[in-house]
This record gives sequence, structure tokens and C-alpha cells, in this order.
Amino acid sequence: MAEHRVALVMGSESDLGVAEKAFPVLDRFGIACDVRVLSAHRSPEAVRELARAAEGRYAAIISVAGAAAHLGGVLASHTTVPVIGVPVSSGALNGIDALLATVQMPSGVPVATVAIGGAANAAILAAQIVAVGDAGMREKLRAYRAELSERVARNDEGLRKRLKK
Amino acid sequence: MAEHRVALVMGSESDLGVAEKAFPVLDRFGIACDVRVLSAHRSPEAVRELARAAEGRYAAIISVAGAAAHLGGVLASHTTVPVIGVPVSSGALNGIDALLATVQMPSGVPVATVAIGGAANAAILAAQIVAVGDAGMREKLRAYRAELSERVARNDEGLRKRLKK
Amino acid sequence: MAEHRVALVMGSESDLGVAEKAFPVLDRFGIACDVRVLSAHRSPEAVRELARAAEGRYAAIISVAGAAAHLGGVLASHTTVPVIGVPVSSGALNGIDALLATVQMPSGVPVATVAIGGAANAAILAAQIVAVGDAGMREKLRAYRAELSERVARNDEGLRKRLKK
Amino acid sequence: MAEHRVALVMGSESDLGVAEKAFPVLDRFGIACDVRVLSAHRSPEAVRELARAAEGRYAAIISVAGAAAHLGGVLASHTTVPVIGVPVSSGALNGIDALLATVQMPSGVPVATVAIGGAANAAILAAQIVAVGDAGMREKLRAYRAELSERVARNDEGLRKRLKK
Amino acid sequence: MAEHRVALVMGSESDLGVAEKAFPVLDRFGIACDVRVLSAHRSPEAVRELARAAEGRYAAIISVAGAAAHLGGVLASHTTVPVIGVPVSSGALNGIDALLATVQMPSGVPVATVAIGGAANAAILAAQIVAVGDAGMREKLRAYRAELSERVARNDEGLRKRLKK
Amino acid sequence: MAEHRVALVMGSESDLGVAEKAFPVLDRFGIACDVRVLSAHRSPEAVRELARAAEGRYAAIISVAGAAAHLGGVLASHTTVPVIGVPVSSGALNGIDALLATVQMPSGVPVATVAIGGAANAAILAAQIVAVGDAGMREKLRAYRAELSERVARNDEGLRKRLKK
Amino acid sequence: MAEHRVALVMGSESDLGVAEKAFPVLDRFGIACDVRVLSAHRSPEAVRELARAAEGRYAAIISVAGAAAHLGGVLASHTTVPVIGVPVSSGALNGIDALLATVQMPSGVPVATVAIGGAANAAILAAQIVAVGDAGMREKLRAYRAELSERVARNDEGLRKRLKK
Amino acid sequence: MAEHRVALVMGSESDLGVAEKAFPVLDRFGIACDVRVLSAHRSPEAVRELARAAEGRYAAIISVAGAAAHLGGVLASHTTVPVIGVPVSSGALNGIDALLATVQMPSGVPVATVAIGGAANAAILAAQIVAVGDAGMREKLRAYRAELSERVARNDEGLRKRLKK
Repeated sequence: MAEHRVALVMGSESDLGVAEKAFPVLDRFGIACDVRVLSAHRSPEAVRELARAAEGRYAAIISVAGAAAHLGGVLASHTTVPVIGVPVSSGALNGIDALLATVQMPSGVPVATVAIGGAANAAILAAQIVAVGDAGMREKLRAYRAELSERVARNDEGLRKRLKK
Repeated sequence: MAEHRVALVMGSESDLGVAEKAFPVLDRFGIACDVRVLSAHRSPEAVRELARAAEGRYAAIISVAGAAAHLGGVLASHTTVPVIGVPVSSGALNGIDALLATVQMPSGVPVATVAIGGAANAAILAAQIVAVGDAGMREKLRAYRAELSERVARNDEGLRKRLKK
Repeated sequence: MAEHRVALVMGSESDLGVAEKAFPVLDRFGIACDVRVLSAHRSPEAVRELARAAEGRYAAIISVAGAAAHLGGVLASHTTVPVIGVPVSSGALNGIDALLATVQMPSGVPVATVAIGGAANAAILAAQIVAVGDAGMREKLRAYRAELSERVARNDEGLRKRLKK
Repeated sequence: MAEHRVALVMGSESDLGVAEKAFPVLDRFGIACDVRVLSAHRSPEAVRELARAAEGRYAAIISVAGAAAHLGGVLASHTTVPVIGVPVSSGALNGIDALLATVQMPSGVPVATVAIGGAANAAILAAQIVAVGDAGMREKLRAYRAELSERVARNDEGLRKRLKK
Repeated sequence: MAEHRVALVMGSESDLGVAEKAFPVLDRFGIACDVRVLSAHRSPEAVRELARAAEGRYAAIISVAGAAAHLGGVLASHTTVPVIGVPVSSGALNGIDALLATVQMPSGVPVATVAIGGAANAAILAAQIVAVGDAGMREKLRAYRAELSERVARNDEGLRKRLKK
Repeated sequence: MAEHRVALVMGSESDLGVAEKAFPVLDRFGIACDVRVLSAHRSPEAVRELARAAEGRYAAIISVAGAAAHLGGVLASHTTVPVIGVPVSSGALNGIDALLATVQMPSGVPVATVAIGGAANAAILAAQIVAVGDAGMREKLRAYRAELSERVARNDEGLRKRLKK
Repeated sequence: MAEHRVALVMGSESDLGVAEKAFPVLDRFGIACDVRVLSAHRSPEAVRELARAAEGRYAAIISVAGAAAHLGGVLASHTTVPVIGVPVSSGALNGIDALLATVQMPSGVPVATVAIGGAANAAILAAQIVAVGDAGMREKLRAYRAELSERVARNDEGLRKRLKK
Repeated sequence: MAEHRVALVMGSESDLGVAEKAFPVLDRFGIACDVRVLSAHRSPEAVRELARAAEGRYAAIISVAGAAAHLGGVLASHTTVPVIGVPVSSGALNGIDALLATVQMPSGVPVATVAIGGAANAAILAAQIVAVGDAGMREKLRAYRAELSERVARNDEGLRKRLKK
């Protein structure tokens, strides 16, 4: 795989607010991304088509969906490419429905689930998956972690200064 | 439709203990039933095939599944025949995962959900759907209700007698 | 049944915001609708009267209610017409109370439950029930599904265009 | 009301294991009890009849029911006699469904709810309601409380002795 | 008891928004009310004092409290007067904490729990308790119920008129 | 305080199965313990008495209670000695009721809550509280931790050996 | 320990809104506080370092964190100083995730958990821990409790006056 | 990476019953596995050491833990190797505590979470991650999926035969 590429599929255009948190992260790690709106229930054939063509093309598929969030599971049922599920908080139940519908997959077909609304972490996980076979990506991830740690340290120092005043 | 027929699909053979509560009810109402074991995640093509062939053949499809119970939604995504979802209590979460994954369907593709483990009620609902266009089935349903009511009355009387002794 | 008709009963006028999502859907499918405000607890006699007169008159009754949502179950206790329950999110518990009170019906008397706030899906389910005995309605449903699928495809295309810029 | 009397209604004979915890308590307080098996959904007419005849006859109605426990609310919709609701843990959800379906009543028609399985407390609450207008019952309740307190004290002492050995 | 009187105790002044829904109801039924702010945890002696003086003075005590809502249980531990618990939704958990802390009382000491935020229903329940020994109050309650029913009927009619236009 | 002493109060003798997990831990740390059965609701005066006499006598009070677990909060309302709350899983709700009733204390009166059934950890926390002013106890705690760590290491090694065979 | 000191660690700068409720309370009790922003996941080495240096330096560590709130547990794994956990409501699940991740610690390593958002109570608990070995602090705590009680009494009186008008 | 290897870390020996479901799956895919018992809270140094040595050594780390399941997050905080979290149902809360503590990771440090008890799926996910850069593993996964599908088909056929008799 010369270039690293993932598909990011959202179940509805209304999931874009969550999904787009993945974009700058993928960008930073140099991972190309096909962004798609495909519904497990309203356009099942398009979902199936994407998933069946995924092997060799995508390092991972990121699925972003709310409510009875079947999208991750349906994608996973049609491919062996790792599917990363991002439950979306929509409607009355605050995303607990989407979380359980995404994570509680039966034996045989896993969906790698991240936190409700956790599209940024989905992108990082995609980078970590890529990094298993790519030492350069591992280097980027270490640099990213170091930055995170430094940002916390700066916040720590900043807060202590402000509180001293 | 000369004969009334439904499909009863369970996601795993281990759901038979729940699913079989539908059999005597369907029998009583003279509804034929194709019983199938088909997994939304492990045999998605078979699920799709059954659903795409359902119109004109089945009055309803009863879906019996636990955990991240996508079966009802996946069936419904491929047909306009009413899909009745029976969440199964399996694993750690007592069926609340299956209930939410079945009932919280997005706008456009409903699954008519009954209680966790409620396969008998799924069969009655199938009969009620059939009865919309079949006066004889309506008669059978009224008789069934009268029996239920009489059974409660007999239990009521029996208990009162036992408590008086 | 020359004309298809349903009753849509809401437990309180405050449920109208949810209930009215069913109106354009019923309209599109050419299903007439008697809209009623009837409370299982505050006007039980009126609920009973409507339910007892429902057979032969309504293809389905859609019940829209929140909190301890008994309306669907009480309607169902007085008729064999299919009752479709729409739980409403009201008050502190976000509709989980209404969902459980609607779906967890005991054996013998089902309520076909849809998602919290899912009145549009209740209307579609009513159309699907009608379609069991009406080939024209099946045709309309297939057309509706095709439209849903096309709308998703347009959103998919539109988003990809926007993201390319 | 020369004699104090309550109705104890259970939704199904299978609720007897919970309901019977009320019997010795009612007995102790000298409250007569009509025990009934009546289902809100399977025998709604009998429930309505009992409730409509309750005024002047019963000081309270104790309702014992599980799952989508509508019994308390349906009884309360037909009478102004206080209805005491005992949610029963049955089926997959451990009684949380019955609790919410019993307690979350809409404005206008309360059900006085006690703990899941709390039939003994329902009986004590009935005695407390009677005691509002009956000084003798107040005396009995004070004696009961004193006994409870003494029993705890005896357990306290007994345990301390055992642990010292 | 020449005059009917209840105590309405709230655990914090911030509970007034919920508690005051009881005032017009108590007023309508001619029930006098001592309104108090007393905290089970911050002023336990005052709570104990009120509860120990309640017999013969109050027909019921209405307890309005949120979070770990111990107020109802602590009041009940010091008196045999019926305690009616109103859970308040405050803080992160939407009142489910207050509901469980109020309703799940151990055997021996019940709290008659109403819905989260259900102070109006608490007042109605107080009137129903009073009515057990007061035929005039029963008459008032029947009139109140008739009004509720008429109000629903007016809403029903009004909505149907609006929808016809 | 020459000798370190805590009170361990359980709300009911049936909580002994949980409470006794604290005994060997307290023993190991040389902390004396007064074990009591006292109910917040059935023997409130005894609870109040113990709590009001706690200052100077106890380094901490461990409260073990289930259901609407008010015991920790009621103890804390009468003393400034740290109260450690152990929620007990009893009845239908698996201890989530006890956890929320123990931990969600209002501002002003904390209860230091440990896991459901976590009486051993309550004892360790008591030792940690004592250790704040007692260097010897700190030493014992460090030794305890080292043992825990070694036990895990032994299990690790043992498992690896068994799996190699 | 000549001076009493605690560390207050928050997992993210966004937790400051909750954490700062502890500041005036610590101030009032004369407890010095090192405020830190340290993330269990993004800066684990800094967390470990603080915790390993805590003995003899801090009377307690207050940990303020949301979501999968590991901060309290990670701090506790590296020290025997009492760790007080404050779950923060952040994101979709209203803090129930943070509460369970903080309180459900395994046997051997407790975190003394307070209510969701309860940073003020965490500070009071720290004062109570200090007071075990400091009679002056006990005096301050008694004065604080008296004030709380008086404030409730003033609110009680004020409300009664307002309602009389 | 000549050979594919993962670490499977469980938080306690009692998690072996869940963890061992991964062994035959890893075996089938030819993935070597270092099985470890390491506790995030009782042996944090050993956890840190394993995680810090993971890069280049392990394709993934499978973390199996219950209750306040911090193990996955703590491992992930020390490495950029993908961490797959398996929540374990232990104690009162049926694994919902472990699920939330594993999946709700903050931005920056994901844990790829599978179903409660889903160790077999964790192993499959590890194989899918390996397969991103290994065409032979992709082939094995396709064969595995085909087998799953055939097994469902055999169950389907078997059940239909049994029901016909």
C-alpha cells in the first residue's frame, strides 16, 4: 500500500459535526480519506458495495452513526478490513443506544469501538493500525503523543501561574 | 394471498429458546412459518436474499436476535414487508442492548418492536397485521382475547378459593 | 376497506410536536387519519370507546405518549387492531420511561413499538401493514424507499463535492 | 368505614410470590383484604369494574405488577381511592421497567409507588393511610415501629456477642 | 382533625421550583400547608423535630428533594404519618438518583413515591389520603377528575378543529 | 489517639456477608473495630447516638447498606468524622440504587464512597486516613501494596508456566 | 505535618469549572493546595511522579476527571495517600461513565468517591481526613456544620415569610 | 515483523475465563501471544514496563479487565501500539462499568473496544489489524468468514430439518 487511505462513512449528513473531528487528525498523519454518506438502512446496497471493495484499498473504515447504529456492523459483515465505530449522540438517549449497537457485536465480526463522539480518536486508531507495518507512522504517532503531553504541561504551568496571581 | 405465511428469522441457533414461543401461537392462528437461522453479520448475503424475496410471500418477518441486534434493521432495509423485532436477553446486559438496537431505528425504516423475549407477542402481532385484511382472522383474535380474559378470571377465582381455606 | 384510515391518538396536547411528524407521511401514502387527544389516565372512558370501535374502521392505531406511557397498552387492551406505540421524550428521563412502558407489554397483548419520537416511522409502519393486503400500497412503499436511497446518494455526492473544494 | 378493607390486585398469578408479603402485615394491622388476579391488558373490564366500585369500599388499592406495569395507573384512572403500586421484578430488566411504568404517572392521577418487590411496605402504607383517621391504628403503627427497632437492637447485640467469641 | 393540614418539606430552597406546583392543588382541595426548608444532612435535628411532632398534626408530609434524596426516608423514620416523596431532577443524573433514593426504602418504613418533579401529584395523593375518611373530599376529587377529563376533551375537540382548517 | 478504632455499621444483619470482608483488613492494620447493626430507618435514634459520640473515638465510620442506602448520609449528618460508604447489591437493582444513594450527597456533607460490595477497600481507606498522621501505618500500607504487587507477579508467573505446558 | 496541604489534580483544563468549587472550601479550612493539570492518558509520567512524591507531602489528593476517568485510580496506584475522586459530567453520558470509572475500583486500591461535580465535598472530606489528627480542624468543621445548619434555618424562615405575604 | 505477536494482558487471574476465548482464535490465525496477569492498580510498574516495550514487538495489546477497567487506558497511555479493550462482566454491574471505563477514552488516546466478554472478537480484530499489511492473513480472514457463514447455513438447514419432523 503505497499511500495510506481510509474510508470515513457517516450514516446521515447530520453526523458531519462529529465526523469532521477526524479530518485534521487524518490530515496530520498523512492518511487520505474517502468521506461518504451511506445509510445502513436507507441505502444498504451502497454500503455493501463500499465494504466489498474495501480490501486492499482501505487500511480501515471509520463508521460514524447514531441511534440504532447498525452501520459499523453492516460494514464489518461485508469486509475483513478493520471497522472503527464512532457512536453518535443523537435523539433522546444521548448515544447510549448508538454505543451498545456498535460495540456489542456477536462473536466473529468485531467493530473496534471508540467513545461516543470520538471521531478524533477513530482517526488516531486508524493511524495506529497503519503504524503496525509502517515505522514512519510510528514515529509520527510518538511525536503526536509528545505534543499532547507538552500541551498538558503547558496548561498545567499556565493554570498555576494564573492561580498564583 | 391464499395462505398466510411469515418468516421467523433468528440470528443464532441459541435464540431458539426464545423464538419457539412463537410457534404454538402461529399454529393456533393458522399462519404458516418459515423458520430460519440467518446472521446479519455472519451470513449477510442470506439475510439480504430472504428479505428481497419477501414481498408477496410473507405477511411479516419476525426477527429474533440479541446483543447488537442488527438483524431486524438489516431485514427491514431490504424489504417493505413489516419486520417485527424480538430483542433477546443474552450476555451481560440483559437484552437492553438488543432492545435499543432493534427499536431505535432511524426515520424511514421502522422495525415493529415487542418486549425482550416477546416472541409470542410477535406472533400475535403478525396475526393482527394479517387480520387487517381478513375478517376470519379478526374473529380468531377476538376468540383468543376472550380466552385470555377467561383464563385470568379462572386464576382470579382459583386464587380466591385457595386463600379462603 | 375502500379507504385506508388510522387513528392517531396522543396522550396530551403537548405530544403534538412529536405526533405531527406522522402527518405528511400518512398524507403521502393516502392514508386518512383521525387525530385525537385522549388520556389513558384522565379520560379512560374516551380511550376505551375509541378502541372498542376501531375494528373494521382503522387499519392501525398510532399511540403517542410520554412518561408512564400506558396509552398504547390501554388501547391495545380494548381492540385487536394493531397498535403502534411512539414513546415521547418528556420530563427528566428522556423517554426511557415511555419506551419501557410501551414496549414491555405482557404476553397476549402486543404494542408495535418504534423509536422514541419516531412518529414518522409509525406512519410508515402503518403503510406497511396496509400494504400486506394492497399491492398499490406496496408500490408506493417501494417508491418511497427508492427516494430515501436517492436522497442519501445526493447527500453523499453533495458532501464529497463540498469537501473537494 | 366500620371495618378497614383494601383490595390487593396482582396482574398475573405469577406475581403472588411478591404479593403475599403483604398478607401477614395487613393481618397484623387488622385490615381485611380482597385478593384479586386482574390484568390491565387481558381483563381490562374486570379491572375497570373493581376500580369503579372501590370508593367507600376500600381504603386503598394495592397493585402488584411487572414489566410494562400499567395496572396501577389503570386502576387509578377509574377511582379516587389511593392506589399503591408495587413494581415486580420479572423478565430481563429486573423491575426497572415496572418501576418507571408505575411511578412516572402524569399530572392528575398519582400512584403511590413503593420499592420493587415492596409489597410489605405497601401494606404498611395502607395502614398509615387508614391511621390518618383512626387513632387506634396509629397506636398499632407505633407499636410496630418499636418492634422493628427492638429487632434491630437484638440483632445488633447478637452480632456483637458472636463476634466477641 | 377539624382542618386538614400537610407539611411540605423541601431539602433545599432550590427545590422550590418543583415544590410550588403543589400549592395551587392543595389550595383547591382546601388543605392547609406548612412549607419548610429542612435538610436531612445539613439540619437533621430540625427534620427529626418536625417528623416527631407530625402525628395528629399532619395528614401527610410531602418531601421534595434531589440527588441522594434521603429526606423522605429520614422523615419517615421518625413518624408514622404517610410520607409522600417527590424526587427532584437536579445535577447530572436527571433525577434517577433521587427517584431510587426515595422509592427503594427497606421493609418497614415506606415512602409513597410519585414521579420525578411530580409535586402536583403529591398534593393530589395527599387529598386522596384525606378523602379516605372525609366524604366531602371524595366529592372534590371526583369533581377534579371530571374537570381533567373535560379539559382533555376540549383539547381533543380544539385540535380536531384546528387540523380541519 | 493512642489506639486506632473505627465503627463499622451495617444497616441490616443481611449485610454481614459484605461487611465481614473488612474484618481481616482492619485486623492486619491493627485497627480496632466496633461492629454494629443499626438501621437509618428502623432505629434512627441509635444511629444518631453512635454518630454524635464518634468524634475523638473513631478515626472513621464505615457504613454498609443496600437499596435506598441512607445510612452513610444519616451518619455523616451527625458527625464530622469521615464516613466511608459501602453500597450493597441487594434486591432487584444490583446495588446501583445503593451506590447513587450513597455517593450523590449534597454539598456540605460528603460520604467517601467505595465500590459496590467494596468493604475491603473501605478498610484500606480507613487505614490510609489513619496513616495521614501515623508514619507507622504508612509503612504498613507500603508493605501491603508491595504484597499485592508480588501476588499479581506470582499469578502472572504461575499462569505463564501453566500455559507453556 | 506543620501545614496541611493537598494536591488537586484535574485531568484537563476543561475540568476547572468543577475543580474550582474546592478552592474557597480549602481556603476556609486553611488547607494549602497545589493545583495541577495532569492527564492519566496524555501525561502519565507526570501523574506518576506527583503520586510517588505525595507521601508526607499531601494529606490527600483530590482527583477531578470526566469520561473514562482513570485519573483517580492511576494516582492511587502509585501512592498510599488517600485519593478523593470527583467524577465530572462531560460529554454524552452525564458523568455516569466518570462515576463508575472512579468508584468501582478493585480490591486493594480504593478511591474515596464523592458526587458527580462534588468538588466542594471533596475539599470538606480532605478537611475531615486532616481533622482525624488535628483537634483544631475538628473545631473548624463543627463551626462549618453549624453555619450550614443556620443557613438552612434562615432559608426556611425567609421562605415562610415570603409565602405568608 | 517476521512473526506476528500480540500481548494479552488480564487485570486479574479471575479474568482468565473470558481471556482464554482469545487463545484458539489467535492460534488459528498463527498469531503468537504473550499472556500476562498485570494489574493497572496493584502492579502499575509492570504494566508500564510491558507497554513501553511494546512497539515493534507486538502488533496489538489485548487488555481484559472488569469493574473500573483502567487497564486498557493505562496500557494505551504508554504506547502507540493499538490497544484492544475487552470489558469483563464482574461484580454487581454486569460489565457496564467496565465497558464505559474502557470505551469512553478522552481525545488523544483511543482504546479499540469490543463487546463485554468479547475476547474472541478481540483476537479477530488483532488478526484484521495484522492483515492490513499481510495479504496471507487477509486470505485466512476470508476463509474464516466463509466458515462462519457456512456454519450458520448448516445450523439453518439442521433446524429446518428438525422442525419438519
